[in-house]
Amino acid sequence: MLYTEIPAQRPVTPLLDEINHPQQLRQLEQSQLTQVADQLRQYILYAAGQSGGHFGANLGVIELTVALHYCFNTPSDRLIWDVGHQAYPHKVLTGRRDRLTSIRAKDGLAAFPAREESEFDTFGVGHSSTAISAGLGMALARRYQKDPCQVVSVVGDGAMTAGMAFEALNDAVAHDADLIVILNDNDMSISCSTGGFAKHLAAIWEQGQSVQLDDQGQPFIQSHPDWCYNSRLHQPATDAADNLFKAIGFDYFGPFDGHDVEQLVNVLNAVKKRKGPRLVHVYTVKGKGFAPAEADQIKYHAIGKSTASGASSQPNAPKYADVFGQWLCDEAEQDNRLLAITPAMCEGSGMVKFAAKYPERYFDVAIAEQHAVTLAAGMACEGLKPVVAIYSTFLQRGYDQLIHDVALQNLDVTFGIDRAGLVGEDGPTHAGAYDYAYMRTVPNIVIMAPKDENECRQMLHTAYLHPGPAAVRYPRGNGLGVHIESELKSLEIGRAEVVASFNTDASARITILAFGSRVSVAIAAAEQLANADSVAVDVINMRFVKPLDAQMIRDYAAKTDLFVTVEEHAVMAGAGSAVNELLVQEQILKPMLNLGLPDEFLAQATHHEMLHDCGLDAQGIYRSIMKTWTQLTVEIE
Amino acid sequence: MLYTEIPAQRPVTPLLDEINHPQQLRQLEQSQLTQVADQLRQYILYAAGQSGGHFGANLGVIELTVALHYCFNTPSDRLIWDVGHQAYPHKVLTGRRDRLTSIRAKDGLAAFPAREESEFDTFGVGHSSTAISAGLGMALARRYQKDPCQVVSVVGDGAMTAGMAFEALNDAVAHDADLIVILNDNDMSISCSTGGFAKHLAAIWEQGQSVQLDDQGQPFIQSHPDWCYNSRLHQPATDAADNLFKAIGFDYFGPFDGHDVEQLVNVLNAVKKRKGPRLVHVYTVKGKGFAPAEADQIKYHAIGKSTASGASSQPNAPKYADVFGQWLCDEAEQDNRLLAITPAMCEGSGMVKFAAKYPERYFDVAIAEQHAVTLAAGMACEGLKPVVAIYSTFLQRGYDQLIHDVALQNLDVTFGIDRAGLVGEDGPTHAGAYDYAYMRTVPNIVIMAPKDENECRQMLHTAYLHPGPAAVRYPRGNGLGVHIESELKSLEIGRAEVVASFNTDASARITILAFGSRVSVAIAAAEQLANADSVAVDVINMRFVKPLDAQMIRDYAAKTDLFVTVEEHAVMAGAGSAVNELLVQEQILKPMLNLGLPDEFLAQATHHEMLHDCGLDAQGIYRSIMKTWTQLTVEIE
Repeated sequence: MLYTEIPAQRPVTPLLDEINHPQQLRQLEQSQLTQVADQLRQYILYAAGQSGGHFGANLGVIELTVALHYCFNTPSDRLIWDVGHQAYPHKVLTGRRDRLTSIRAKDGLAAFPAREESEFDTFGVGHSSTAISAGLGMALARRYQKDPCQVVSVVGDGAMTAGMAFEALNDAVAHDADLIVILNDNDMSISCSTGGFAKHLAAIWEQGQSVQLDDQGQPFIQSHPDWCYNSRLHQPATDAADNLFKAIGFDYFGPFDGHDVEQLVNVLNAVKKRKGPRLVHVYTVKGKGFAPAEADQIKYHAIGKSTASGASSQPNAPKYADVFGQWLCDEAEQDNRLLAITPAMCEGSGMVKFAAKYPERYFDVAIAEQHAVTLAAGMACEGLKPVVAIYSTFLQRGYDQLIHDVALQNLDVTFGIDRAGLVGEDGPTHAGAYDYAYMRTVPNIVIMAPKDENECRQMLHTAYLHPGPAAVRYPRGNGLGVHIESELKSLEIGRAEVVASFNTDASARITILAFGSRVSVAIAAAEQLANADSVAVDVINMRFVKPLDAQMIRDYAAKTDLFVTVEEHAVMAGAGSAVNELLVQEQILKPMLNLGLPDEFLAQATHHEMLHDCGLDAQGIYRSIMKTWTQLTVEIE
Repeated sequence: MLYTEIPAQRPVTPLLDEINHPQQLRQLEQSQLTQVADQLRQYILYAAGQSGGHFGANLGVIELTVALHYCFNTPSDRLIWDVGHQAYPHKVLTGRRDRLTSIRAKDGLAAFPAREESEFDTFGVGHSSTAISAGLGMALARRYQKDPCQVVSVVGDGAMTAGMAFEALNDAVAHDADLIVILNDNDMSISCSTGGFAKHLAAIWEQGQSVQLDDQGQPFIQSHPDWCYNSRLHQPATDAADNLFKAIGFDYFGPFDGHDVEQLVNVLNAVKKRKGPRLVHVYTVKGKGFAPAEADQIKYHAIGKSTASGASSQPNAPKYADVFGQWLCDEAEQDNRLLAITPAMCEGSGMVKFAAKYPERYFDVAIAEQHAVTLAAGMACEGLKPVVAIYSTFLQRGYDQLIHDVALQNLDVTFGIDRAGLVGEDGPTHAGAYDYAYMRTVPNIVIMAPKDENECRQMLHTAYLHPGPAAVRYPRGNGLGVHIESELKSLEIGRAEVVASFNTDASARITILAFGSRVSVAIAAAEQLANADSVAVDVINMRFVKPLDAQMIRDYAAKTDLFVTVEEHAVMAGAGSAVNELLVQEQILKPMLNLGLPDEFLAQATHHEMLHDCGLDAQGIYRSIMKTWTQLTVEIE
C-alpha cells in the first residue's frame, strides 16, 4: 500500500496488536508477514506523526525488520542496528509499541536503540558505522564462550563509507567470524550518498544480476527480477565485476528487494545456515510506502511533531546553521580561496545554498569525519582556506586529525562546530558537551563561542581571517532574534566584552564570565540577582575560550568578590576550568563558582528541559549564584 | 647487493654525493638509477646505524624513492609519505643527506617528514593513513586553482586498513581526482599485516598476473615475472578476481616489483600520463638489502643507536609495556573472561608473550583504533572483560568510540594507555600529552596514573576489577626499578597516598599533588625544597585523575600554604586543572601552582631533554616551586 497521509488517528492494526514479543511474530505463517508489515507501516506513520522524529529510514526497513525478527531468535540472537535512525519498527515489534508515541520526549523512549531500555537493544547507537565492530565483538565473545549465536549487524550504505565500518569488515575476515552484515542500501545517508562506494553499489545494481541462495543455503547467480526500485542517483563509474565485499573476504549475497518480506525470509533463512563473514545486500527505499517521503527523501529524513495536522512552529530567529550557511556564501563571495567541507551533513549544517551557488567549492565527503579534517589540512597546504562544517559530537571522530594534521602544523582551517552543547531530543549520543575540553588542551587552536547569531557571524569571519586553526562552536536551533549585520566584521582575538552591569554603585560585586549560549541567560540571571540583593553584577561575554582575555579577568579580579563561569559544556575541563587555570597562573585568589553541565550523560528531553534540569537556565543560574553568594557573605560576616 | 653489516664508517657514495636536489637526480640516465639506489642503501645503513630510528621501512623504499623523485617534478609535484617511517631516503635525496645522522636527536632532523623542515615535506606525518586524505586535499585545491600538478601519496599496506584511508579512497573517486596512490605493500605494518585486506593483497599476488601499462600509458594484463619476493605470510582467503581498488573506482596497476628501479620508472612515467584516481601496487621487502633485517622484519622495524657497533644499553628496570604484558598474562590466568585487543602494536605494547600463550584471547585488529575500541565494547556486552592496549596518541583516533560506545554505555572495558606523556625522539606527532583532558571531561571513566611499575600493575588490576570503563596511563620506557609484587593487588578507587613528608614540624607547608611519572621526581624536588628552606613539604601520589581524592585534598587544604600539581601532560585541562576545579567546588581558596607541559607542540629530543626543557625534572620542579614560594612569602610578609 502506498499511503499519502499521516494518520491523525491510531490506525486499526489487529495483527500487529498481538505482537508484544518477537516470539509471537515468529508463530505467524510466512504468508501473513506482508500483512504485518503493512500494519506496522501504518502504525509507524501514525506514531511518528505524533512524536516527530526520524521517519524515512524507518519506513524503509519495515519489511526487513519483520523478516529479521521472524528469522532470528532475538534477543538470544544479536541484532545490532547501525545509527538507529531506523529502529522504530524494531521498537514496535519488541514490546514498545504503545510507547512509541513518546519517543524522543523526556522520560519517553530513546531516539535510538539503548541497552538500558530493552534487552532487544543489544548495542546503544546514535553515531553511524559502529554496528559491525560491535557485532563482531559479540560474535567473537560468543565464540570464545563456546555459546555461539547468530549476530546480525544492519548497516546503511551511507554509514558504510565511514572508515570504522571498513576496519570492522577487514577484521571480521581476519577472524573468520560468524557474522552477518545486512547492507541496507537506500542510496542515501541523510543526504544523498556520495563517493566511490555509492558508485560501486549502483554498478552492482545496474549489472542486473544477483547472488541468491538455494534451499540448502548454496549461492547461485541469477538475473534479478525487475522489482520496483528507487532510481539510482549516480552514474556508475566503478566496475561491478569487482565486488568490494568479496574482495575483502566476505561472502556476498544480493542485491535483494528489501520490500519483499517473504523473499527476505527465504534469503535470511538460507544465509543463516552458512558460516563466516557474510554480507546480504538489500535495496530499500527511504520513506517507502508514504508517497511524499518517497518523493522527497531528504526532507522526510526526520519530521517535526504533528506534521500530520499541518501545524508548524516557524520561529522568527534564524537557525545558527543557517547563519553559518549565509556567512559561508558571503565570505565565499569576497574570497575565492574559501572551500567548504561537510561530512554528509549538507542540510543539517545549513549548506544547501552554498552547495548550489558554489558547486566547485563544495565538498561533501560522505560520512567520513577523519578524512574531512585531513582533507581540509591538505587544501590549506596549497594556500586555500577550507572551512569544515561539523557537529560537535561528530568532530570527536576527527579528533586525532584535528591534533595531528591541523593543529600541529598550524594550518589555516576554520571549523564551524554546530550542535554544541545539549541537543535535546537526540539525547546523550549527540550531545556536544566536550569540545571545549578536547580542543583547548591542544596547542594553536583559537576557540570561540558566540552570544547570539550576529556574533556568530562575526566570529566565523574572525576565525576565517585567523591564519591558523580556529573554531566557532554554536548551539543547535535558533538564534535570539537579534539584527544580523550584513557587513563582515571581525573581532579582536582574545578580547572579551562587558555586556551588562547592574547596581554599579554597590560595594559588593559579582562578575559572571559567560560563554556562548549562556551569555543572554546570564544577563537575565544577573538582573534577578541585582534586584534581589544590593550587589553589583557584571556580565562578561567571554567570546574566546582560547585564548582567554587575561587582562579582562585581571581587571575584574581586582574589584569583584565572586567570579562565576557559566557555559553549556561539561564543567570538567571546560571553559570555566580554563578560567580557573588562568587565575592560578596569575596567582589570583578569588571565590569562584563554575556552572556548566554535570559529569553524567543526560537522557533526552527538550533542549529547554535539559537546560532547566541542569540549572543552566536564568532561574537556575540565579539560584546557584545566590546560594554561593549567601554562603560567602555569611563567611565574610 | 645484499649487505650483512651496518657500516661503522661512512661508505663511499660518489654518485649520491652529487645529489643535493632531486633536479640533479633527474639529470642522470635511467640506467644509473640502480647504482644510485645501491649507494643510497649503503648510506642509509650507515646513517641509521649512527642515529638509530626507523630502519626496515626505509630500506624497503630505496628504489621507490629514487624512482618517484626521478619521475615527478618535486617539490612542485606533491609527494606525500604516509606515516613517515620510510622517509629517510627521501630526506637524503632532498638536500638533507649529511644531516640524516642527526635524525630524531634534539635540533636534528625530525623523525618524520615535517613541513617546517623542507619544502619537499609537503605534509607532516607520524600517525598512519593520512596521506591519501592530505594528497586529495592538495589535488582538489590545485585543480580549483587551475594549477594542476601531480600528487602522489605513498601508503603502506598496513596503513591501508585504517578507516580514514578507505574514506579518502571513496572520496577521491567522488571527485574523480587526479591522484596517484602508491600502495607500498610489504605485507607488514610494524607487526605483520592482518585481516581481509592483507589476504586480498596476498590473493592478488598469488593470481600471478599484473596490470601493466604500455608506452602510451594504456593498461594491459601480463603474467608477472618470477621476481624475488618476500614470501606472503597469509593464506589468501579472498577472491583476487574481485579487485578492491577497482571496485571502489580506482584505476589499478600492479603488482610491480618495488625493487626494480628501472621498471618502476617506466611504470610511473606511464601512470603519470593518465588522469583520475590511480593506484599503483608495488611489492617491497621491509629491510631489503640488509640480510638480518630481511630475516627479522619486526625486530628491525626500528633500531637503537650504534646497533652497528654492537653496543647496547640494557637497563635493569623493566619497560612499562612489559609490566603491562606480564600483568595481562597473570590476570588472564586468573580470569578467563579477559580478552586483549591491540591495533597492530603487539610488540610495542608488550603483548608478544600474551599472544603466544593465549592466541584465542588475543586480537590484533590491524591499524584500526576506532574499531578496536568498539570491538571491545561489543565484547563487554557479552559479559567478557576486554583490555585495549593502545598508545595515548593513538587513542585520539578512537576518541568518539571511547565516549559513544564505551563510556556512555558504562561498559566494562579496561584501557592500558602506553606512551603517555612525552615520547622523546618520535617527537610531537606521538606525544601523549592530552589524554587526561580528553578523557576526564567524559563521564563514567576512571583514570589512573602510576608512580612506578609496581603501582602500574596494581592499577591495571584495579582498572580490570572496576565494572565500568577504566584507564591506566603510563609512560614510554623503563620503570624505576622497584620490586614488582607478583600478587595482584587492587587499590581503592579515588584514594591517593602520601608518599613523602619533609620538615614535618615546620609551620609553613607546601603540598605537592603529583601524578604518575612525576611522583618520584616530585619527591626529589621536595627534598631539595626542604633542604633549602624550613618549610614542611608533603608529596601526595594522587593516583587517580578521576575520581580525585577529594578528602585528601580537603585535609591538606586545611594545613597547607601552597598546593602544587605536577603532571606529564598539558597543563591546559589536565590533572592539575581537575584539582583546581575541585578546590573551586569546595570553595577552598589556596595558593596553587600547576606544573605540566606548556601549551605548545614540542620538537623531538630525548625524553630526558624534553622533560628538562619543560621544567618537569626534579630541578625544574624545585625551581618553579621555589619561585612561587618566594613570591608568596614576600606577599605574606
